[in-house]
Amino acid sequence: MTKVRTGNNKFLKAYNEAGILDLIRTEKALSRADLSKATGLSPTAAGAIVSSLIDKGYIHEVGTGESKGGRKPVLLELKPDSYYSIGLDVDIDSISYILTDITGRVVYEGTTELILHTPDAVVSKAEECIKGIVAERSIDIGKLLGIGISVPGMVDAQTHNILLAPNLNWEDVELRQMLKARLELPVYIENEAMASAICENWIGACQGVSNFVCVNIKSGIGAGIFTDGRLYRGAGGSAGEVGHIVVDERGPKCGCGNYGCLETIASTGRLVEAARRLVRQGVVSSLNDFTDADNIHLSHIVDAARAGDEAAKSLLTEAARYIGIALSNLVNTLNPSKIVLGKDFVKYGDLVMDMLRSVINNKALKRPAANVEITVSEIGEKASTLGVAIIPLKVLFGR
Amino acid sequence: MTKVRTGNNKFLKAYNEAGILDLIRTEKALSRADLSKATGLSPTAAGAIVSSLIDKGYIHEVGTGESKGGRKPVLLELKPDSYYSIGLDVDIDSISYILTDITGRVVYEGTTELILHTPDAVVSKAEECIKGIVAERSIDIGKLLGIGISVPGMVDAQTHNILLAPNLNWEDVELRQMLKARLELPVYIENEAMASAICENWIGACQGVSNFVCVNIKSGIGAGIFTDGRLYRGAGGSAGEVGHIVVDERGPKCGCGNYGCLETIASTGRLVEAARRLVRQGVVSSLNDFTDADNIHLSHIVDAARAGDEAAKSLLTEAARYIGIALSNLVNTLNPSKIVLGKDFVKYGDLVMDMLRSVINNKALKRPAANVEITVSEIGEKASTLGVAIIPLKVLFGR
Repeated sequence: MTKVRTGNNKFLKAYNEAGILDLIRTEKALSRADLSKATGLSPTAAGAIVSSLIDKGYIHEVGTGESKGGRKPVLLELKPDSYYSIGLDVDIDSISYILTDITGRVVYEGTTELILHTPDAVVSKAEECIKGIVAERSIDIGKLLGIGISVPGMVDAQTHNILLAPNLNWEDVELRQMLKARLELPVYIENEAMASAICENWIGACQGVSNFVCVNIKSGIGAGIFTDGRLYRGAGGSAGEVGHIVVDERGPKCGCGNYGCLETIASTGRLVEAARRLVRQGVVSSLNDFTDADNIHLSHIVDAARAGDEAAKSLLTEAARYIGIALSNLVNTLNPSKIVLGKDFVKYGDLVMDMLRSVINNKALKRPAANVEITVSEIGEKASTLGVAIIPLKVLFGR
Repeated sequence: MTKVRTGNNKFLKAYNEAGILDLIRTEKALSRADLSKATGLSPTAAGAIVSSLIDKGYIHEVGTGESKGGRKPVLLELKPDSYYSIGLDVDIDSISYILTDITGRVVYEGTTELILHTPDAVVSKAEECIKGIVAERSIDIGKLLGIGISVPGMVDAQTHNILLAPNLNWEDVELRQMLKARLELPVYIENEAMASAICENWIGACQGVSNFVCVNIKSGIGAGIFTDGRLYRGAGGSAGEVGHIVVDERGPKCGCGNYGCLETIASTGRLVEAARRLVRQGVVSSLNDFTDADNIHLSHIVDAARAGDEAAKSLLTEAARYIGIALSNLVNTLNPSKIVLGKDFVKYGDLVMDMLRSVINNKALKRPAANVEITVSEIGEKASTLGVAIIPLKVLFGR
C-alpha cells in the first residue's frame, strides 16, 4: 500500500518520512529504489527522505543487495539502539517497566514496588523509574521518543485523563498532565487491556489481524478490541469492559453494583477467595496438601491442579466455563477472527483451554465460533507494559 | 473536511466528483466558489467537475446566493428525481420495497406477498417487484443507480453471499449473482440490522454519530454496529448477532442450540407464543377480552397493554427487562453513544422504555450507561428497506 502523498510542505514531509520509515520497519532491508517503487515517490524525493532519516539516526545502511543489472543496491534498516521508548504498567502494588528500542526489542525491564497507589505516589515512582532506567542504561534523554503508561481503568479517548480506575480507587485523574509537568517528554496513557491489544497487533499474535479481542484476566477482567484494523475505544473510551458481562444473573454481587458479572467468578482475586474458602470450610481438607488458607495464592491453585488435585482443577475449569460464556457473547456480537487471553490466564490457560473452547463451540453461533481462533498470549504478563512502550513508536511510524 | 486530492487521472477525477457531490449533498446550496474553497481545488478544476456533474444530471442550479462583492454566486443542489435507487427487504412471507431518489427521499413504497421463500422464488419476486416499480413510475432503467437487498441473515463481507438465514432456511445462497444474471444493475446484499444502521447513519437518528448500535426486534433479534464512523461487519460478516446473547442461562432452548438466548424470550414470535400460552392455560382468562388464543398477534398484546391489561403489560415489560440485560452487555463492551431500537419494538417501545432504561442504569457500568442515549427508531419498520436503498447512493457519493 502506498503510504505517501505528493506535494511539498512541512506536513507532507513528516507524513512521507513516517511512511518510508514504516516501510523499512515492516519490510526490512529495502533499497532507495525499492522505496521509490513502493511509494510512487520519485527516486530523488525518496533519496532525500532517506538522507534525512539517516541524518536523524533512525535508519542506517546495512550492506548491499542483489544487483538487477547496475550497481548493487545499498540496503537500509532501522538502526537498533538509536531511539528508545519506555512503558510503565501501573498496578495496585507495583509498577512494571520496559525499555524498548526503535525496533520494539526489549532492552531492559523490571518491576518496582508501590507502597502507596495515590496519583501523587504513582507519579513520583514513575519519575523515579524513568530516571533510573535512563541512568542505568546511560541513555541520552533526547533519544527517548516518549513514555507510555498503562493503567487498570477507563481512559478518556480525547483528554487521556483517567476517568475511573476502581482497583486504584482513582476517579478523574490527570496523570498525563502530572507527569508532563515533571518530564520534558511526550506521555501517553492507555487502558491496560487496550495496551495489550496494541502489543499483540504490533509484535504479537495479531499482526495483520483486523478484528480481534485481547482479554486480560487478573484482579479485574478487561478487553482490548480491534475493529477493522484499529483499536476501538468506544464513545467515551470505556469499550471492552467485558469483566462486567453478566454470566450468571443469580451470581454474587460485583463491585460495580450488579450481580453475577464475569469478574465476580473468574478474576484472580475471586478464584483465590474461592480456594481459601474451600480449605477454610473443610470442604476440601487441603489443596494439594496446602492447608494454610490465608496464604493461598493463584500459584498454589495452579501447582495443585498440575499435580492432579481435583478441587484445584475444578476451580480453574469452573472459572473457564464462565469465561467461555462471556467469550461466546463476544463471538456473537463482534465476530472476531482471534481472541487472545492474557495476564494471569497465561499461568493456567493450558489446563482449561479445552473447557473454554467447548463452551464457545456449544454456546456461540456455529459460523463465528468455527472461525475464531482462541489462544493464550505468548507475550504473556508483560503485554500491556510492552504495549504502552510501543505507543511512542506507533506515533513515530505514523500508525 | 477536504475530500478531494490533487492530480489528474481517471481515478482521481471520479474520486473528486464523488467528493464534490457529497459536499453538495451534505451542505446543500453551495456555489462553485464555496466548493473550490472547501476542497482546495482551483476554481477552474472545481468548475469543471461541477459542469460534468450538471451534464450527468446529478445536480442543478437553483438560483443565486448573497453577493460578497462581485456577481451573485449561482447555487447548486442535488437534482431530485434525477437518479433513483431501489431497496428490497426480504422477510419470510413478504418483500417490502422502497424507491428513493438521489436525495434519499422516498418516492414510492409498498409490500408484496411472498408465498414461497426459496431463493428462486425470492429472485423471481424481486425481479417482478423491480420491474413493477420501474413501470409504475415510468423510470428510465438507466437512471437506477442500483438495487439493495436486505435479508435476515449473515452476509459474507467479501463475496456478499448469504452465509446463513435461519428464518428463511437459507445457507450459502448467491443471491447477488442470481439477481445480477437477470438485471443489468449493481446489486448489493446486506444484513437487515446492518441496513437499518446504514439508514439511521445516513438520514436518521445517528447522522454524524461514530459509535452506535441499531437493534432490530422482530422474528429474530439482530444489531447493526458502527465503530469509529463505519459499519462494523466482523471477520466473517456476522457481527451483531445480539439475539444470541445469553440473558438467562437456565432459560428456554434456542434454535441455535443454546439456552436462554435473548431471542428465546424477547423476539416477537416468543412474545406472541407466551401470550397464547397464558390465554390457553387460563392463567389469564383473556388479554383485554381477547380469548381466541390461536389468533393473538403482537398488535393484540400491544393494544391490550395500552388499554391497561396487566397480563399484556407484564409480558412486554418482562421482554424489555431481558432486552435491557443484553443491552447492558453491549453498553459495557462497546460503549456506544446511541442505541436505536427498531422493527416491531417501535410498536410498543414507549410502553417499556422506562423499564429498559432502568435495567441498563442498574446493570451496566455507570459511566457508559450515563452516556448512552437509548431511543426508538423514528424511521421505524422501514429502516432496513430504506437502508439498502441508500447503499447505491453511498457508492455514488463515495461514502
